[in-house]
Amino acid sequence: MTNFEEKTTNTTPIYSGRVISLSVDDVVLPNGKPSKRELVKHPGAVAVIAITQDHKIVLVEQYRKALERTLVEIPAGKIEQGEDPKETAFRELEEETGYTASDLHFVQSFATSPGFADEIIHIYVAQGLKKVTENRQLDEDEFVEIHECSLAEAEKWIQDEKIYDAKTAFAIQWWRLHRF
Amino acid sequence: MTNFEEKTTNTTPIYSGRVISLSVDDVVLPNGKPSKRELVKHPGAVAVIAITQDHKIVLVEQYRKALERTLVEIPAGKIEQGEDPKETAFRELEEETGYTASDLHFVQSFATSPGFADEIIHIYVAQGLKKVTENRQLDEDEFVEIHECSLAEAEKWIQDEKIYDAKTAFAIQWWRLHRF
Repeated sequence: MTNFEEKTTNTTPIYSGRVISLSVDDVVLPNGKPSKRELVKHPGAVAVIAITQDHKIVLVEQYRKALERTLVEIPAGKIEQGEDPKETAFRELEEETGYTASDLHFVQSFATSPGFADEIIHIYVAQGLKKVTENRQLDEDEFVEIHECSLAEAEKWIQDEKIYDAKTAFAIQWWRLHRF
Repeated sequence: MTNFEEKTTNTTPIYSGRVISLSVDDVVLPNGKPSKRELVKHPGAVAVIAITQDHKIVLVEQYRKALERTLVEIPAGKIEQGEDPKETAFRELEEETGYTASDLHFVQSFATSPGFADEIIHIYVAQGLKKVTENRQLDEDEFVEIHECSLAEAEKWIQDEKIYDAKTAFAIQWWRLHRF
Protein backbone atom coordinates (compact mmCIF):
# COMPACT_ATOMS: atom_id res chain seq x y z
CA MET A 1 0.00 0.00 0.00
CA THR A 2 1.51 3.29 -1.15
CA ASN A 3 1.36 6.42 0.97
CA PHE A 4 -0.86 8.90 -0.86
CA GLU A 5 -1.37 11.19 2.12
CA GLU A 6 -2.23 14.80 1.35
CA LYS A 7 -0.81 17.13 3.99
CA THR A 8 -2.82 20.21 4.90
CA THR A 9 -0.86 23.48 4.80
CA ASN A 10 -3.84 25.76 5.49
CA THR A 11 -7.52 25.41 6.40
CA THR A 12 -10.02 28.11 5.44
CA PRO A 13 -13.27 27.78 7.39
CA ILE A 14 -16.18 28.74 5.12
CA TYR A 15 -19.32 27.90 7.06
CA SER A 16 -20.38 26.31 10.32
CA GLY A 17 -24.05 25.38 10.56
CA ARG A 18 -26.57 23.27 12.41
CA VAL A 19 -25.89 20.02 10.54
CA ILE A 20 -22.72 20.51 8.50
CA SER A 21 -19.67 22.73 8.27
CA LEU A 22 -17.51 23.47 5.25
CA SER A 23 -13.83 24.30 4.94
CA VAL A 24 -11.38 24.49 2.07
CA ASP A 25 -7.97 22.96 2.76
CA ASP A 26 -4.79 23.78 0.90
CA VAL A 27 -2.98 20.48 0.55
CA VAL A 28 0.30 19.15 -0.78
CA LEU A 29 -0.23 16.22 -3.14
CA PRO A 30 2.02 13.12 -3.11
CA ASN A 31 3.94 14.60 -6.08
CA GLY A 32 4.69 17.77 -4.07
CA LYS A 33 2.24 19.97 -6.00
CA PRO A 34 -0.36 22.14 -4.24
CA SER A 35 -4.10 21.58 -4.56
CA LYS A 36 -7.32 22.45 -2.75
CA ARG A 37 -9.90 20.17 -1.14
CA GLU A 38 -13.46 21.21 -0.31
CA LEU A 39 -14.42 19.36 2.86
CA VAL A 40 -17.84 18.97 4.48
CA LYS A 41 -17.92 17.90 8.14
CA HIS A 42 -20.95 16.01 9.43
CA PRO A 43 -21.45 14.44 12.88
CA GLY A 44 -22.23 10.99 11.43
CA ALA A 45 -25.46 9.06 11.36
CA VAL A 46 -27.07 5.73 12.09
CA ALA A 47 -29.72 3.71 10.28
CA VAL A 48 -31.74 0.67 11.28
CA ILE A 49 -32.89 -2.33 9.26
CA ALA A 50 -36.15 -3.17 11.09
CA ILE A 51 -38.02 -6.28 9.92
CA THR A 52 -41.37 -7.05 11.54
CA GLN A 53 -42.58 -10.51 12.68
CA ASP A 54 -44.59 -10.77 9.46
CA HIS A 55 -41.49 -10.16 7.30
CA LYS A 56 -42.00 -6.54 6.42
CA ILE A 57 -39.39 -3.80 6.57
CA VAL A 58 -40.27 -0.57 8.36
CA LEU A 59 -39.59 2.43 6.13
CA VAL A 60 -40.07 6.16 6.55
CA GLU A 61 -41.09 8.52 3.80
CA GLN A 62 -39.93 12.11 4.14
CA TYR A 63 -39.21 15.19 2.07
CA ARG A 64 -35.55 15.67 1.24
CA LYS A 65 -34.96 19.32 0.47
CA ALA A 66 -31.54 18.66 -1.10
CA LEU A 67 -33.26 16.56 -3.77
CA GLU A 68 -36.59 18.46 -3.80
CA ARG A 69 -38.59 15.23 -3.51
CA THR A 70 -39.76 12.66 -0.99
CA LEU A 71 -37.73 9.51 -0.46
CA VAL A 72 -38.62 6.25 1.25
CA GLU A 73 -35.74 5.27 3.53
CA ILE A 74 -34.87 3.03 6.44
CA PRO A 75 -35.19 4.88 9.78
CA ALA A 76 -32.08 6.98 10.35
CA GLY A 77 -30.76 10.02 12.10
CA LYS A 78 -27.78 12.12 13.07
CA ILE A 79 -25.60 11.21 16.03
CA GLU A 80 -25.99 13.87 18.73
CA GLN A 81 -22.87 15.13 20.49
CA GLY A 82 -21.56 12.58 22.99
CA GLU A 83 -24.08 9.96 21.93
CA ASP A 84 -23.06 6.35 21.28
CA PRO A 85 -24.18 5.35 17.75
CA LYS A 86 -26.15 2.37 19.07
CA GLU A 87 -27.99 4.65 21.49
CA THR A 88 -28.81 6.97 18.56
CA ALA A 89 -30.14 3.98 16.63
CA PHE A 90 -32.47 2.91 19.47
CA ARG A 91 -33.66 6.52 19.83
CA GLU A 92 -34.24 7.21 16.14
CA LEU A 93 -36.02 3.90 15.58
CA GLU A 94 -38.53 4.63 18.32
CA GLU A 95 -38.92 8.36 17.53
CA GLU A 96 -39.44 7.89 13.80
CA THR A 97 -41.42 4.64 13.71
CA GLY A 98 -42.93 3.95 17.15
CA TYR A 99 -41.13 0.57 17.22
CA THR A 100 -38.60 -0.55 19.80
CA ALA A 101 -36.07 -3.36 19.50
CA SER A 102 -34.94 -5.75 22.23
CA ASP A 103 -31.45 -5.40 20.75
CA LEU A 104 -29.64 -3.88 17.78
CA HIS A 105 -26.87 -5.82 16.06
CA PHE A 106 -24.17 -3.90 14.23
CA VAL A 107 -24.10 -4.66 10.49
CA GLN A 108 -21.60 -2.31 8.84
CA SER A 109 -20.38 1.28 8.73
CA PHE A 110 -19.53 3.26 5.63
CA ALA A 111 -18.68 6.74 4.39
CA THR A 112 -21.49 8.08 2.23
CA SER A 113 -19.58 10.59 0.06
CA PRO A 114 -15.85 10.18 0.69
CA GLY A 115 -14.95 12.56 -2.14
CA PHE A 116 -16.11 15.63 -0.23
CA ALA A 117 -17.65 14.68 3.15
CA ASP A 118 -16.63 12.84 6.33
CA GLU A 119 -20.14 11.53 7.05
CA ILE A 120 -20.07 7.92 8.30
CA ILE A 121 -23.29 5.97 8.63
CA HIS A 122 -23.53 3.00 11.01
CA ILE A 123 -26.09 0.36 10.02
CA TYR A 124 -27.81 -1.84 12.62
CA VAL A 125 -30.38 -4.60 12.34
CA ALA A 126 -33.18 -4.70 14.92
CA GLN A 127 -33.87 -7.83 16.96
CA GLY A 128 -37.20 -8.41 18.75
CA LEU A 129 -39.01 -5.55 17.06
CA LYS A 130 -42.15 -4.42 18.87
CA LYS A 131 -44.64 -1.62 18.21
CA VAL A 132 -44.86 0.49 21.38
CA THR A 133 -46.78 3.56 20.38
CA GLU A 134 -48.73 5.21 17.63
CA ASN A 135 -47.58 8.57 18.97
CA ARG A 136 -44.19 9.09 17.44
CA GLN A 137 -41.92 11.78 18.85
CA LEU A 138 -40.51 13.56 15.85
CA ASP A 139 -38.14 16.50 15.82
CA GLU A 140 -39.98 19.77 15.29
CA ASP A 141 -38.77 19.99 11.68
CA GLU A 142 -39.43 16.33 10.89
CA PHE A 143 -42.52 15.09 9.00
CA VAL A 144 -42.55 11.42 8.10
CA GLU A 145 -44.98 8.74 6.99
CA ILE A 146 -44.38 5.08 7.90
CA HIS A 147 -44.57 2.23 5.42
CA GLU A 148 -44.23 -1.51 6.00
CA CYS A 149 -43.16 -3.41 2.89
CA SER A 150 -42.40 -6.97 1.86
CA LEU A 151 -39.04 -7.62 0.21
CA ALA A 152 -40.76 -7.82 -3.19
CA GLU A 153 -42.51 -4.48 -2.60
CA ALA A 154 -39.26 -2.85 -1.47
CA GLU A 155 -37.46 -4.13 -4.58
CA LYS A 156 -40.31 -2.76 -6.72
CA TRP A 157 -39.85 0.61 -5.00
CA ILE A 158 -36.16 0.52 -5.91
CA GLN A 159 -37.17 -0.05 -9.56
CA ASP A 160 -39.60 2.88 -9.28
CA GLU A 161 -36.94 5.05 -7.57
CA LYS A 162 -39.22 5.71 -4.56
CA ILE A 163 -36.35 4.11 -2.65
CA TYR A 164 -33.37 6.07 -3.93
CA ASP A 165 -30.66 6.48 -1.30
CA ALA A 166 -27.46 4.60 -0.58
CA LYS A 167 -28.21 3.27 2.92
CA THR A 168 -31.64 1.93 1.90
CA ALA A 169 -30.29 0.42 -1.34
CA PHE A 170 -27.67 -1.30 0.83
CA ALA A 171 -30.28 -2.37 3.40
CA ILE A 172 -32.62 -3.99 0.86
CA GLN A 173 -29.74 -5.98 -0.65
CA TRP A 174 -28.63 -6.96 2.86
CA TRP A 175 -32.15 -8.19 3.59
CA ARG A 176 -32.21 -10.29 0.41
CA LEU A 177 -28.86 -11.83 1.38
CA HIS A 178 -29.83 -12.51 5.02
CA ARG A 179 -33.55 -13.37 4.87
CA PHE A 180 -34.62 -14.85 8.16
CA MET B 1 -48.50 9.62 0.14
CA THR B 2 -48.70 12.87 2.08
CA ASN B 3 -47.30 16.10 0.69
CA PHE B 4 -44.39 17.08 2.94
CA GLU B 5 -42.92 19.62 0.52
CA GLU B 6 -40.80 22.36 2.03
CA LYS B 7 -41.12 25.58 0.06
CA THR B 8 -38.05 27.81 -0.24
CA THR B 9 -38.61 31.45 0.68
CA ASN B 10 -34.99 32.54 0.39
CA THR B 11 -31.68 31.04 -0.76
CA THR B 12 -28.39 32.31 0.67
CA PRO B 13 -25.43 31.23 -1.44
CA ILE B 14 -22.47 30.49 0.86
CA TYR B 15 -19.79 29.00 -1.36
CA SER B 16 -19.26 27.91 -4.94
CA GLY B 17 -16.20 25.76 -5.54
CA ARG B 18 -14.57 23.34 -7.92
CA VAL B 19 -16.52 20.24 -6.83
CA ILE B 20 -19.36 21.39 -4.60
CA SER B 21 -21.36 24.48 -3.73
CA LEU B 22 -23.21 25.28 -0.53
CA SER B 23 -26.33 27.33 0.14
CA VAL B 24 -28.65 27.78 3.08
CA ASP B 25 -32.35 27.85 2.24
CA ASP B 26 -35.07 29.38 4.39
CA VAL B 27 -38.01 27.01 4.06
CA VAL B 28 -41.59 26.75 5.21
CA LEU B 29 -42.31 23.38 6.83
CA PRO B 30 -45.56 21.45 6.18
CA ASN B 31 -46.90 22.84 9.50
CA GLY B 32 -46.30 26.41 8.29
CA LYS B 33 -43.30 27.04 10.55
CA PRO B 34 -40.01 28.41 9.21
CA SER B 35 -36.77 26.42 9.22
CA LYS B 36 -33.38 26.39 7.51
CA ARG B 37 -31.78 23.72 5.31
CA GLU B 38 -28.06 23.52 4.57
CA LEU B 39 -27.73 22.21 1.03
CA VAL B 40 -24.65 20.94 -0.80
CA LYS B 41 -24.81 20.78 -4.60
CA HIS B 42 -22.66 18.24 -6.41
CA PRO B 43 -22.61 17.41 -10.17
CA GLY B 44 -23.26 13.69 -9.57
CA ALA B 45 -20.99 10.72 -10.07
CA VAL B 46 -20.72 7.27 -11.61
CA ALA B 47 -19.11 4.06 -10.41
CA VAL B 48 -18.34 0.79 -12.16
CA ILE B 49 -18.49 -2.80 -10.93
CA ALA B 50 -15.72 -4.36 -13.02
CA ILE B 51 -15.20 -8.12 -12.68
CA THR B 52 -12.32 -9.70 -14.59
CA GLN B 53 -12.45 -13.01 -16.54
CA ASP B 54 -10.84 -14.73 -13.53
CA HIS B 55 -13.57 -13.50 -11.16
CA LYS B 56 -11.77 -10.64 -9.50
CA ILE B 57 -13.15 -7.16 -8.93
CA VAL B 58 -11.05 -4.18 -9.99
CA LEU B 59 -10.65 -1.73 -7.10
CA VAL B 60 -8.78 1.54 -6.69
CA GLU B 61 -7.08 2.64 -3.52
CA GLN B 62 -6.78 6.39 -2.99
CA TYR B 63 -6.38 8.94 -0.25
CA ARG B 64 -9.62 10.58 0.82
CA LYS B 65 -8.84 13.91 2.42
CA ALA B 66 -12.33 14.26 3.95
CA LEU B 67 -11.65 11.10 6.01
CA GLU B 68 -7.84 11.56 6.31
CA ARG B 69 -7.20 7.99 5.21
CA THR B 70 -6.96 5.80 2.13
CA LEU B 71 -10.00 3.84 0.99
CA VAL B 72 -10.32 0.96 -1.44
CA GLU B 73 -13.27 1.68 -3.76
CA ILE B 74 -14.77 0.65 -7.06
CA PRO B 75 -13.64 2.94 -9.92
CA ALA B 76 -15.70 6.13 -9.85
CA GLY B 77 -15.70 9.74 -10.83
CA LYS B 78 -17.61 12.98 -11.16
CA ILE B 79 -19.83 13.64 -14.16
CA GLU B 80 -18.38 16.49 -16.19
CA GLN B 81 -20.72 19.19 -17.48
CA GLY B 82 -22.80 17.96 -20.43
CA GLU B 83 -21.49 14.41 -20.10
CA ASP B 84 -23.81 11.40 -20.22
CA PRO B 85 -23.29 9.28 -17.06
CA LYS B 86 -22.53 6.16 -19.10
CA GLU B 87 -19.86 8.07 -21.04
CA THR B 88 -18.36 9.19 -17.69
CA ALA B 89 -18.35 5.58 -16.55
CA PHE B 90 -16.46 4.38 -19.66
CA ARG B 91 -13.98 7.24 -19.25
CA GLU B 92 -13.36 6.82 -15.51
CA LEU B 93 -12.98 3.04 -15.80
CA GLU B 94 -10.25 3.38 -18.42
CA GLU B 95 -8.53 6.40 -16.83
CA GLU B 96 -8.40 4.95 -13.32
CA THR B 97 -7.79 1.26 -14.06
CA GLY B 98 -6.49 0.86 -17.63
CA TYR B 99 -9.42 -1.48 -18.36
CA THR B 100 -12.08 -0.99 -21.03
CA ALA B 101 -15.48 -2.61 -21.25
CA SER B 102 -17.30 -3.72 -24.41
CA ASP B 103 -20.47 -2.43 -22.74
CA LEU B 104 -21.71 -1.04 -19.42
CA HIS B 105 -25.08 -2.14 -18.06
CA PHE B 106 -26.94 0.20 -15.73
CA VAL B 107 -27.46 -1.30 -12.25
CA GLN B 108 -28.97 1.38 -10.01
CA SER B 109 -28.73 5.05 -9.04
CA PHE B 110 -28.93 6.45 -5.53
CA ALA B 111 -28.46 9.63 -3.51
CA THR B 112 -25.45 9.27 -1.23
CA SER B 113 -26.38 11.77 1.52
CA PRO B 114 -29.96 12.94 0.99
CA GLY B 115 -30.01 14.78 4.32
CA PHE B 116 -27.70 17.53 3.10
CA ALA B 117 -26.49 16.86 -0.47
CA ASP B 118 -27.97 16.30 -3.93
CA GLU B 119 -25.19 13.97 -5.09
CA ILE B 120 -26.55 11.03 -7.11
CA ILE B 121 -24.29 8.14 -8.03
CA HIS B 122 -25.08 5.92 -11.01
CA ILE B 123 -23.75 2.36 -10.76
CA TYR B 124 -22.87 0.31 -13.86
CA VAL B 125 -21.53 -3.20 -14.32
CA ALA B 126 -18.86 -3.76 -16.99
CA GLN B 127 -19.32 -6.38 -19.70
CA GLY B 128 -16.37 -7.75 -21.71
CA LEU B 129 -13.69 -6.23 -19.51
CA LYS B 130 -10.27 -6.02 -21.18
CA LYS B 131 -6.95 -4.56 -20.00
CA VAL B 132 -5.84 -2.04 -22.60
CA THR B 133 -2.94 -0.24 -21.03
CA GLU B 134 -0.63 -0.12 -18.06
CA ASN B 135 -0.39 3.66 -18.55
CA ARG B 136 -3.39 5.07 -16.80
CA GLN B 137 -4.42 8.67 -17.47
CA LEU B 138 -5.17 10.12 -14.08
CA ASP B 139 -6.28 13.63 -13.29
CA GLU B 140 -3.37 15.77 -12.11
CA ASP B 141 -4.57 15.60 -8.48
CA GLU B 142 -5.38 11.88 -8.57
CA PHE B 143 -3.06 9.19 -7.15
CA VAL B 144 -4.44 5.69 -7.11
CA GLU B 145 -3.26 2.11 -6.74
CA ILE B 146 -5.15 -0.75 -8.44
CA HIS B 147 -6.14 -3.96 -6.67
CA GLU B 148 -7.84 -7.06 -8.07
CA CYS B 149 -9.69 -9.06 -5.42
CA SER B 150 -11.75 -12.21 -5.19
CA LEU B 151 -15.19 -11.90 -3.59
CA ALA B 152 -13.84 -13.50 -0.39
CA GLU B 153 -10.94 -11.01 -0.29
CA ALA B 154 -13.27 -8.06 -0.88
CA GLU B 155 -15.58 -9.23 1.93
CA LYS B 156 -12.52 -9.55 4.21
CA TRP B 157 -11.59 -5.96 3.30
CA ILE B 158 -15.08 -4.87 4.34
CA GLN B 159 -14.54 -6.58 7.72
CA ASP B 160 -11.17 -4.81 8.00
CA GLU B 161 -12.74 -1.48 6.94
CA LYS B 162 -10.24 -1.06 4.08
CA ILE B 163 -13.42 -0.99 1.96
CA TYR B 164 -15.49 1.61 3.76
CA ASP B 165 -17.72 3.60 1.43
CA ALA B 166 -21.36 3.27 0.45
CA LYS B 167 -21.01 2.59 -3.29
CA THR B 168 -18.38 -0.14 -2.76
CA ALA B 169 -20.34 -1.72 0.13
CA PHE B 170 -23.33 -1.81 -2.24
CA ALA B 171 -21.20 -3.17 -5.12
CA ILE B 172 -19.75 -6.08 -3.13
CA GLN B 173 -23.25 -7.11 -1.95
CA TRP B 174 -24.47 -6.79 -5.54
CA TRP B 175 -21.65 -9.04 -6.71
CA ARG B 176 -22.51 -11.68 -4.07
CA LEU B 177 -26.17 -11.60 -5.21
CA HIS B 178 -25.36 -11.75 -8.95
CA ARG B 179 -22.25 -13.95 -9.17
CA PHE B 180 -21.66 -14.96 -12.77
